Amino acid sequence: MEPVRFELIRRCPRTLARRGRLHTPHGTVETPVFMPVGTQATVKTMAPWELAEMGAGIILSNTYHLHLRPGEDMVREMGGLHAFMQWPGAILTDSGGFQVFSLADLRKITDEGVQFRSHLDGSLRFFSPERVMEIENALGADIIMAFDECPPYPASREYLETSLRRTLDWARRCQRAHARPEEQALFGIVQGGEHLDLRRQAVEALVELDLPGYAVGGLSVGEPKPVMHEVLAYTTPLLPADKPRYLMGVGTPEDLFEGVERGIDMFDCVLPTRIARNGTVLTSRGKLVIRNARYARDPRPLDEACDCRVCRTFSRAYIRHLIKAGEVLGIRLTTYHNVYFLLRLMEGIRRAIEAGRFPEYKREFYDTYGYNESGNIGEEGLD
Amino acid sequence: MEPVRFELIRRCPRTLARRGRLHTPHGTVETPVFMPVGTQATVKTMAPWELAEMGAGIILSNTYHLHLRPGEDMVREMGGLHAFMQWPGAILTDSGGFQVFSLADLRKITDEGVQFRSHLDGSLRFFSPERVMEIENALGADIIMAFDECPPYPASREYLETSLRRTLDWARRCQRAHARPEEQALFGIVQGGEHLDLRRQAVEALVELDLPGYAVGGLSVGEPKPVMHEVLAYTTPLLPADKPRYLMGVGTPEDLFEGVERGIDMFDCVLPTRIARNGTVLTSRGKLVIRNARYARDPRPLDEACDCRVCRTFSRAYIRHLIKAGEVLGIRLTTYHNVYFLLRLMEGIRRAIEAGRFPEYKREFYDTYGYNESGNIGEEGLD
Repeated sequence: MEPVRFELIRRCPRTLARRGRLHTPHGTVETPVFMPVGTQATVKTMAPWELAEMGAGIILSNTYHLHLRPGEDMVREMGGLHAFMQWPGAILTDSGGFQVFSLADLRKITDEGVQFRSHLDGSLRFFSPERVMEIENALGADIIMAFDECPPYPASREYLETSLRRTLDWARRCQRAHARPEEQALFGIVQGGEHLDLRRQAVEALVELDLPGYAVGGLSVGEPKPVMHEVLAYTTPLLPADKPRYLMGVGTPEDLFEGVERGIDMFDCVLPTRIARNGTVLTSRGKLVIRNARYARDPRPLDEACDCRVCRTFSRAYIRHLIKAGEVLGIRLTTYHNVYFLLRLMEGIRRAIEAGRFPEYKREFYDTYGYNESGNIGEEGLD
Repeated sequence: MEPVRFELIRRCPRTLARRGRLHTPHGTVETPVFMPVGTQATVKTMAPWELAEMGAGIILSNTYHLHLRPGEDMVREMGGLHAFMQWPGAILTDSGGFQVFSLADLRKITDEGVQFRSHLDGSLRFFSPERVMEIENALGADIIMAFDECPPYPASREYLETSLRRTLDWARRCQRAHARPEEQALFGIVQGGEHLDLRRQAVEALVELDLPGYAVGGLSVGEPKPVMHEVLAYTTPLLPADKPRYLMGVGTPEDLFEGVERGIDMFDCVLPTRIARNGTVLTSRGKLVIRNARYARDPRPLDEACDCRVCRTFSRAYIRHLIKAGEVLGIRLTTYHNVYFLLRLMEGIRRAIEAGRFPEYKREFYDTYGYNESGNIGEEGLD
């Protein structure tokens, strides 16, 4: 029996958007879904009950970071990641591939795996598909990602071919090494850069493994938006309709809409939490940089259309004061709002798909959000 | 009519300890009470609903800091400090005196007031009793402190006399300048260093003003504990029994017991929040430094005798991981626990006074907390 089962509820008649349900050992997740990122076993600044209160059903955590600190053995000893961080919902762990490959000078890739140095203490480490499965099995997330190589953009065709061959081989090795297939669902990752034939080749090889879910990787790594959209529109229809599809590392409001429109069910991104710590918030009228002097005496909530606890309680003036004064409560409040904003956005998308009006909902959002072809204008530009 | 009224409920038959109630425009506060410190209009890392959930009835905020940032005019424009920070309970603002006198080289004292430079931008500022009342009136706390000079320890008798004369003169000027006596209670501050005759002189002059409350200042500034205890034991009985007595800047568990024993009703201290950010927590068995390697795999709560949300939820191992990893949630959790710990300690003290067994309660606490004459041993030393 599969630990994770995907239920397809409804399709948008005019786009590839789909409304589904992901049944996991830690609850059912309504899709399309946005997964907040909890790199070090915490969604930065948030308590788990706050994520639950916001309606987050699944979060992502990072294998690379948890392996280095506190170490997967300790997490297993404490009862696994759910018990360790006291998060009752579902968890997905990435494979550490993205982080390891981002280390640049610090790593060495062979077909066997990747040797790298810890960014914390410089110690020499080795990740192979087998080692990563050991770590992810110890962490105990509901969904675990296969160890893959995420090539940069741009990369040569030749490099992408070599890398893809390795990634597909590693996926097979992950599947063989995965020790808890009854409890944790292993997702494969489709790579292949901007080359559609490579993407097709990746899908075919992975689908042969009959995995419980598939991710589209290697996007949002610097390529132009039209490339991302083209690859997505081409790739997702190749994937089995009864399996969930996850677009990795993507999470601007626009990217969420574009991804859903092209058949994606799951997303994750550090965007809402990262920009929050810098004092930038997402609102229904675009981004708002709370440090700006214009908000010093602004009694309005961060987003007048938002019903989150922060917007129901505090003024822009107060939150700006906190951020300017370096107070932790400031970044707590902006983080809470931003995560809530994206969760509500996804809820709106789900409702729109159910009602058969996803394209209309998307257009309405873009109109209000101030998005146009040259990018997001945001509230700052609209007033 | 006084904005703040003190109701004396019960006296300890064997010590000066007293159980009372402070009725304020923002709720009734049970005394003896500990006031968490919210320097910049936030108790660091905590949301106001968390303070309410813990049972905090009154918090302290700092006039000096709020004057510099965001400025009292802005706070007034936003509806005052309660509305600005959305804290429904009572607030006490200090007078800024302590901060201004701590600036050392940056300030110049005359009978008129104190000229100083902002620690934020170096701008030249001037605090006089009249100016401080303007600021505190604008902030709108329920209790406002008179502008005083808090001399360092040790200081010469001659200096203390000059300083006290000035402080008493400033108290009279504060009372005259106070523009909202129907809404905000002005407390006077008893200074005089370790000299009991000066303390008596201070009390007599202040009592003549018939203020709604009195603070004992200039303690916990470096003097030996026996000096603090002697001054307190001498001073509080001189103060009118029907007015609340506030010991400024004091808040170790031991100091709270010793203060209550000598007739103090109100306390404030940055201790629980400050040490929390350094990873030190207060427990029923003494202080615990969560960074220590011995807690790396410790599944127990911070304090096994504590029923706070943090202790009911998280392990020492997890909190240690968060603190070591520099995660904000770590200092949120230690702060929450520490403030809760002191609030529960005061609740225990109040119950003990009601039950006529304050001295026994104190002895029991000290035995478990591991306190002896050479100071706090703490859990680290007991295991």
